[in-house]
Amino acid sequence: MPGEFEQIDWVRRRVGSHPRVPLGIGDDAALVRLSSDPGTLVTVDMLMEGTDFTFPPATPRLAGRKALAVNLSDIAAMAGRPVACVVSVALPRGRGIEFARELHLGIEELAREFDVAIAGGDTNSWDGPLVVSATVFGETVPPGPIRRSGAQPGDWIFVTGSCGGSIHGRHLTFTPRVREALALHSAVSLHAMIDVSDGLAADLHHILDESRVGAVVEAAAIPIHSDVRDNGTTPLEHALGDGEDFELIFTVSPEDGAKLFADDSLKSGLTRIGTIAQVGVRELHGADGSVSPLLRRGWEHTL
Amino acid sequence: MPGEFEQIDWVRRRVGSHPRVPLGIGDDAALVRLSSDPGTLVTVDMLMEGTDFTFPPATPRLAGRKALAVNLSDIAAMAGRPVACVVSVALPRGRGIEFARELHLGIEELAREFDVAIAGGDTNSWDGPLVVSATVFGETVPPGPIRRSGAQPGDWIFVTGSCGGSIHGRHLTFTPRVREALALHSAVSLHAMIDVSDGLAADLHHILDESRVGAVVEAAAIPIHSDVRDNGTTPLEHALGDGEDFELIFTVSPEDGAKLFADDSLKSGLTRIGTIAQVGVRELHGADGSVSPLLRRGWEHTL
Repeated sequence: MPGEFEQIDWVRRRVGSHPRVPLGIGDDAALVRLSSDPGTLVTVDMLMEGTDFTFPPATPRLAGRKALAVNLSDIAAMAGRPVACVVSVALPRGRGIEFARELHLGIEELAREFDVAIAGGDTNSWDGPLVVSATVFGETVPPGPIRRSGAQPGDWIFVTGSCGGSIHGRHLTFTPRVREALALHSAVSLHAMIDVSDGLAADLHHILDESRVGAVVEAAAIPIHSDVRDNGTTPLEHALGDGEDFELIFTVSPEDGAKLFADDSLKSGLTRIGTIAQVGVRELHGADGSVSPLLRRGWEHTL
Repeated sequence: MPGEFEQIDWVRRRVGSHPRVPLGIGDDAALVRLSSDPGTLVTVDMLMEGTDFTFPPATPRLAGRKALAVNLSDIAAMAGRPVACVVSVALPRGRGIEFARELHLGIEELAREFDVAIAGGDTNSWDGPLVVSATVFGETVPPGPIRRSGAQPGDWIFVTGSCGGSIHGRHLTFTPRVREALALHSAVSLHAMIDVSDGLAADLHHILDESRVGAVVEAAAIPIHSDVRDNGTTPLEHALGDGEDFELIFTVSPEDGAKLFADDSLKSGLTRIGTIAQVGVRELHGADGSVSPLLRRGWEHTL
């Protein structure tokens, strides 16, 4: 029966050495070179089989990939540069070492794409479904991390890409917006940013809550992904509420908003969906002049 | 129905601010001040209900405590000082917000005891058992981290405390040997160190493997914990094989070994269990002069 140590040895040989990781896999803890000033970005996400993916359509490789990708998306949302990760996993006993290896390969492939060092991990098995938790470390990029709390009335609200329907497969294959975030961060003064995990409306509400502001969103402007299927819930509702788009919502001054639209390389894929308003205003404006409340919608784990 | 955001807000208010954490709970990632030179110690451990604890005799508070404690033990095994952590959790849906809060309180109490900042986390619920994964960051302490790979033939092998029988409750309540490790690290030149998670024999084998050396262990010297029950497996076998003692195994030169025995404050609780030998020698010596192979025993997750 293959065991954890055979798997750990295999991963250790594959991963090799990395300049960021003076001591890697094979001891009680890794030693990782991280930034002390102003600090290191740290994010963690746990994915569970049956909630965050199912087999099929997911494969262990896609599950591993997603476990890292959702965390890279969080680093992107802070306008940071991901540098290293550690991964803990509860493997369903009896699915074999090939399952464990495919899971690792999904992590490794995305880690290589973004030059993220795999510094260590914890390999377990049990009689339950797959659970995988990744912790990702990132560097801040001057002038510093972008928080949810910096939106100001009058700011233009943008979203990268389009939203809705990710459940049909995109939630497993999306590319985290790390490069886009860094390009935006170097071009303009980002006031607030978040990635769309709970849903476009719910995550915009997180910005509004933390910034103590309101927003007016133009329904007609919401970029609806071609993955959305019209199934009783309207395409607009899908785009606002589906979640796991892993696009970025951000706000900038109108001047910087105009600057983005004037730059062909930056404006690609960007959509202005509304304007930050005074606190208390949370409105969805229809093309017909209708005004409805901007509902929170979106995913929340119930306890 | 209480949800993740109510719980996150509650944790955020409790945890407050910490000088190590310029940006804490409430954004896409935390910002944590970590050491860049020579690096930051990073360790992660995932615990699963049914494998690492069961309810009862465990409580959610003890499960949370253990999730942090096993990681602090890993930092101790590197002779490091723990400074911060992040925790991801899959909560069994329907056990209520009190369960989630108790889990947090178990983490928080131990974190305060060791001045470990709780920098962030990920709160999920699902229809499965409790899974909790903690990632802990530590500072190295001069002259640097102690690896598994530094044992040298002739070294004396020590263990802190005594081993075996932790399953009867100690695996939930042990105090990680952080303070002991730091005291030893400042007093002598530690050559190799590991914490006893898989089992005294198995974890000693990890030192031997990584150091490419052998060992002679004196059976009569093995400190057997009073928790061990004589139930067909001998007390010695329990002490060598049970695991989850979270004591430290370390090796030092004979000169430093003698120095430890000469210091009343350091020698308390320490036992010399044997001597590092040339590679190829892995022997258990009985009090009657018998020589048997030093078996690996111990826990391994099968895949």
